Amino acid sequence: MDEGEPDGEADDVDSRRMQIAFLVYDDMTALDMIGPYEVLGRLPGAEIRFVAAEPGTKRTDQKLGLVADFPLADVPAPEIVVVPGGDQRGPMGDERVLDWLRAAHETSTWTTSVCTGSYILAAAGLLEGRRATTHWATLEGLAEFGALPVSERVVEDGKLITAAGVSAGIDMGLTLAARVAGDDFARAIQLGIEYDPHPPFDSGSPAKAGAQIVELLRGYYASERS
Amino acid sequence: MDEGEPDGEADDVDSRRMQIAFLVYDDMTALDMIGPYEVLGRLPGAEIRFVAAEPGTKRTDQKLGLVADFPLADVPAPEIVVVPGGDQRGPMGDERVLDWLRAAHETSTWTTSVCTGSYILAAAGLLEGRRATTHWATLEGLAEFGALPVSERVVEDGKLITAAGVSAGIDMGLTLAARVAGDDFARAIQLGIEYDPHPPFDSGSPAKAGAQIVELLRGYYASERS
Repeated sequence: MDEGEPDGEADDVDSRRMQIAFLVYDDMTALDMIGPYEVLGRLPGAEIRFVAAEPGTKRTDQKLGLVADFPLADVPAPEIVVVPGGDQRGPMGDERVLDWLRAAHETSTWTTSVCTGSYILAAAGLLEGRRATTHWATLEGLAEFGALPVSERVVEDGKLITAAGVSAGIDMGLTLAARVAGDDFARAIQLGIEYDPHPPFDSGSPAKAGAQIVELLRGYYASERS
Repeated sequence: MDEGEPDGEADDVDSRRMQIAFLVYDDMTALDMIGPYEVLGRLPGAEIRFVAAEPGTKRTDQKLGLVADFPLADVPAPEIVVVPGGDQRGPMGDERVLDWLRAAHETSTWTTSVCTGSYILAAAGLLEGRRATTHWATLEGLAEFGALPVSERVVEDGKLITAAGVSAGIDMGLTLAARVAGDDFARAIQLGIEYDPHPPFDSGSPAKAGAQIVELLRGYYASERS
């Protein structure tokens, strides 16, 4: 895209730039980020920035290499912040990330997370007294950070938007796209990514999957940790 | 999840390896690949390989850097081949990619695509006389390659599985996961990625979106090409 336009002089929506920062880190879950990225990147004027405490190639929890192009300091005031989940313990313990999040949240229009990315927002102190969600398997733990856990797919509390597990970031992205560019534009993006979901099964929540499938998955999680 | 019969000398499902190759290329659409990757990477024994004619960092159509770790020659016989779409003209014109696809398809258990990735399979001659799909906006063009275009979200024809646009790769991945590891394991993966879709709108197909939204999107596509 044309990066030549100065900020501040644009006079219509298409010539405005809207910076969207995605936090990239080792052991993150790719779809947590790619869902909202695929949606929000199609907004008018979207200027995507993949950021990390130390730029370079990060490896997801399934070892895909994703490139963080910019250091946090180069993107101090994005309009939209997106924090994906995965194994979020690294960024939760990295004061550079938490300081950046606190500062970015001061000026952001929207601060968002997907899956356990909300724990990174929580570690930065941003969810104190706020309604928020995360992956169903870890929902209650948010309360330890003073958040009010909500079992919904997309939770809005002011300019904070948190999404449930992994694939919920697509729904969050569309919700946010509508806030930014209007319902019709969000609908056009949905059509563009042909998001007319027809999973072959209906087991996307613990209640729908049933106890046997929940146990199967918990056994798998336990074996992964061992 | 237990498929019983060991390959070679493995004696349980977890010690078997199943190589899954994802073709990575410049100007691809990230979600086309990440949808099936997020699902199939959770299969028992999944050994993911990101391949390209020339390994290194590729840039998606929205400029995300994705790393192709392996040259095609290093992954000659994957059990599963996944070809994402996007601007697919590069790989369609690259004989190295087409030769690799033809050879890999000879021995693959499943050969798959998402969105316009099916045009790459078609260019390799793999869709001649086969039922196949792609993004709704480009469906009819598949017939020029001798394929039989089908307007369905996931189309199976023998070991060929093609998915509709972008997000349809998640549904394709779950369909394939069930073939490989059984319905219950696929259900557990669906629960793991919390794929309980609730988009804020119902406009994921041209019929559902309506003529006005279709025109809005077509105008956007036209402006992008200009």
